[in-house]
Amino acid sequence: MSTPARPESVADPGDGGAVAGSARRQDTRLDSYVDRYAARTHGMKASAVRALFAVANRPEVVSLAGGMPNIADLPLNVVGDAMREMILDVGPQAMQYGSGQGEPELREQICEVMSLEGIAAHPDDVTVTVGSQQALDLLTRIFCDPGDVVLAEAPSYVGALNTFGAYQSRVVHVGMDDHGLDPAALREACASLQRHGARAKFLYTIPNFQNPAGLSQPVQRRRELIEVAREFDLLIIEDNPYGLLNLAGDPLPAMRSMDAERVIYLGSFSKTFAPGFRAGWVLAPHAVREKLVLAQEAATLCPPVFSQFAVSKYLSSHDWRGQIESFKSMYAARRDAMLAGLSEHMPAGTTWTRPDGGFFVWLTLPEGLDSQAMLPRAVSNRVAYVPGTAFYADGLGSRNMRLSYCYPTPERIIEGTKRLGEVLGRELELHETFGLHDQPRAVERSQAPRPDQR
Amino acid sequence: MSTPARPESVADPGDGGAVAGSARRQDTRLDSYVDRYAARTHGMKASAVRALFAVANRPEVVSLAGGMPNIADLPLNVVGDAMREMILDVGPQAMQYGSGQGEPELREQICEVMSLEGIAAHPDDVTVTVGSQQALDLLTRIFCDPGDVVLAEAPSYVGALNTFGAYQSRVVHVGMDDHGLDPAALREACASLQRHGARAKFLYTIPNFQNPAGLSQPVQRRRELIEVAREFDLLIIEDNPYGLLNLAGDPLPAMRSMDAERVIYLGSFSKTFAPGFRAGWVLAPHAVREKLVLAQEAATLCPPVFSQFAVSKYLSSHDWRGQIESFKSMYAARRDAMLAGLSEHMPAGTTWTRPDGGFFVWLTLPEGLDSQAMLPRAVSNRVAYVPGTAFYADGLGSRNMRLSYCYPTPERIIEGTKRLGEVLGRELELHETFGLHDQPRAVERSQAPRPDQR
Repeated sequence: MSTPARPESVADPGDGGAVAGSARRQDTRLDSYVDRYAARTHGMKASAVRALFAVANRPEVVSLAGGMPNIADLPLNVVGDAMREMILDVGPQAMQYGSGQGEPELREQICEVMSLEGIAAHPDDVTVTVGSQQALDLLTRIFCDPGDVVLAEAPSYVGALNTFGAYQSRVVHVGMDDHGLDPAALREACASLQRHGARAKFLYTIPNFQNPAGLSQPVQRRRELIEVAREFDLLIIEDNPYGLLNLAGDPLPAMRSMDAERVIYLGSFSKTFAPGFRAGWVLAPHAVREKLVLAQEAATLCPPVFSQFAVSKYLSSHDWRGQIESFKSMYAARRDAMLAGLSEHMPAGTTWTRPDGGFFVWLTLPEGLDSQAMLPRAVSNRVAYVPGTAFYADGLGSRNMRLSYCYPTPERIIEGTKRLGEVLGRELELHETFGLHDQPRAVERSQAPRPDQR
Repeated sequence: MSTPARPESVADPGDGGAVAGSARRQDTRLDSYVDRYAARTHGMKASAVRALFAVANRPEVVSLAGGMPNIADLPLNVVGDAMREMILDVGPQAMQYGSGQGEPELREQICEVMSLEGIAAHPDDVTVTVGSQQALDLLTRIFCDPGDVVLAEAPSYVGALNTFGAYQSRVVHVGMDDHGLDPAALREACASLQRHGARAKFLYTIPNFQNPAGLSQPVQRRRELIEVAREFDLLIIEDNPYGLLNLAGDPLPAMRSMDAERVIYLGSFSKTFAPGFRAGWVLAPHAVREKLVLAQEAATLCPPVFSQFAVSKYLSSHDWRGQIESFKSMYAARRDAMLAGLSEHMPAGTTWTRPDGGFFVWLTLPEGLDSQAMLPRAVSNRVAYVPGTAFYADGLGSRNMRLSYCYPTPERIIEGTKRLGEVLGRELELHETFGLHDQPRAVERSQAPRPDQR
């Protein structure tokens, strides 16, 4: 594998199954296995925008769609030497089957990482997963029967929505305000379920630099949300891939640091080191951890051992905290470029969030525009984004889009916002000339939560 | 991670969830989350022998229980240099997110590997998985609703039984004879289902050096089984981790080489290179492959990219075919030691299979003995095995045990058979003195298939 070519389609933590994957062969053939599939499989469908994103990955297109971290600054010679040394030292262990729960030394290091967010945890309560995506998969497997309700922010991470859908769960979205998930909306959602004799299996939330909204919960907000959860005996899954990438200062205390029995915490090395190792984890109360290990053994026997030794070696031999600081400077410059570009190039009536970290800005279009309908025209103008509808289980979000600043250079980001501004300008002209036919349905306008009113 | 210590419990392709995993904390606490779990979770239980196997992993015990390959002969300096070079060449790609289907270059190399067994395949029909265990997980997810029937050999791989159980499938065992899965028994099982208005979602079979029975299907037998499958429109999942480890000569043609639309093929690098990378794959008809990729994206976004680049680099830079020949010589010596030790030390009335490859011998105890009941006494005598009941979904197998020759040295293997012979001798004495109280139930004796009558 000596050429640095990328496959034409690459999984992406921002896009998940909605836009990633192979578009090489379009499925025009009949599926002769269709009567054999499980009920859950009939809900697995490739997104309509999948083929479009194959085009959007061309180099002439500025992609503000992806969620890939920029790992170009990782010192390859340091990593290469460390891996060679690791193999010579402990290769026979690193290349052997390992613990279904994950390697003990890595689990200890994970506890050190989590201590930066105020979490006091025991390595025995940590389960290593194939990225935190697999943590979502195993938790949904453990908790959710078909039809079970899961609460999630409106909008929420598309990869989580895919996984909840793969287990036939029913996602109920809960609104956000400037400070992220709204405790009043959460209370109302729980009360409404209660009135219908139902209960949510858990709340799924991303407290820091939420994907896709870019909003963060202040400390007091986290406490309020936990209060509501106690009131309704609600479990919380706290997904925290971006927490250490706080551009405004030190990391905030995790929700898990405030309640060890009610909060199940998901972490990942994908954004603080590199995603290719697929090393994530779950910190869960002991009884849940036991189920997670059984589920992990049925799913993979054990998470990738070589990856775990590699990450462990990186953490013990490299200044990983310094590397995170360097990532933060790089992302800060890109975030600033995105915000400057939007200020300069967006037409009146467009609004967007101003994230303190993470990878994403959530943009709301002027009334009458539809982000999914205009995507082909944007790609023609050599800029790509993810339409807001991808982040809702219920079809909302047509006036929204997610813009990511993690991967392109600042210059390309500014160029991308300029191209996007041109597309929006032409859409508005069309809309003014021809009126309402491109408008989203009324229900979407009136009910869509607006996390960007700040 | 500078010390070569192993965790006290290690996942194991032979034992799966039945015996692997952490026994550090015994679960004596109440599970306060129990009313929140999905229905499928209530079936996830740690095996009763799990704690015992923590003891069995002590160095003074000869473990004939594990299924870990012996990778001590891998040239660490070659692998270490190759990994360093790979990182310097393509590190930014190897450490980034990748394709949900798996890296294109590795999929091409996988097709080369499969050509050794007569398979002509296109890389686009290959999906990379987190070991072939995950292939089982994704296929069961795609095909099986709760209550669906899966056919499997009697006995069958415990890790597969775990996965089928995790999706609440119902396993129907099909008998074997000297040549592996019996076509007449398969026909009868299919006909019986048909009479009850049911149909199996698929047949799960391991044609080469079956785990745990150690039996192989001759070429003609494979054709006969495919004929029966055609007769009943049955899908076949061909699991082939050991096919290239044929100690008797060249690999046999895979079932997949005889029918590309009816056979879904699972492969793995765990036994031909090393398991720690967790690199397996599925070769499936196009429509199924599309579902697999969607399921993979929901499960992990993408299989471990770094592992894939590592395996790919190993295949392109090392004489992997020569390495397999060297593995074969090493395993042949161990297999021979096992068979010699059994011939010398087993009491009359004990029978066992004589594998041509793979890792396992299946042993049948003299009438009246129970392998699970005597396991604690065997471990006290410093020898461990897996009781036959682990390999049945229906409680049979109490007169059987699986003995593995893959991991201990020939000397240790012979010592292990000696210790096992002592235990059997004492069990027989007890049995003769005190009669029938240790006997397995009559139903198990009369119905248990006996793959070892050769």
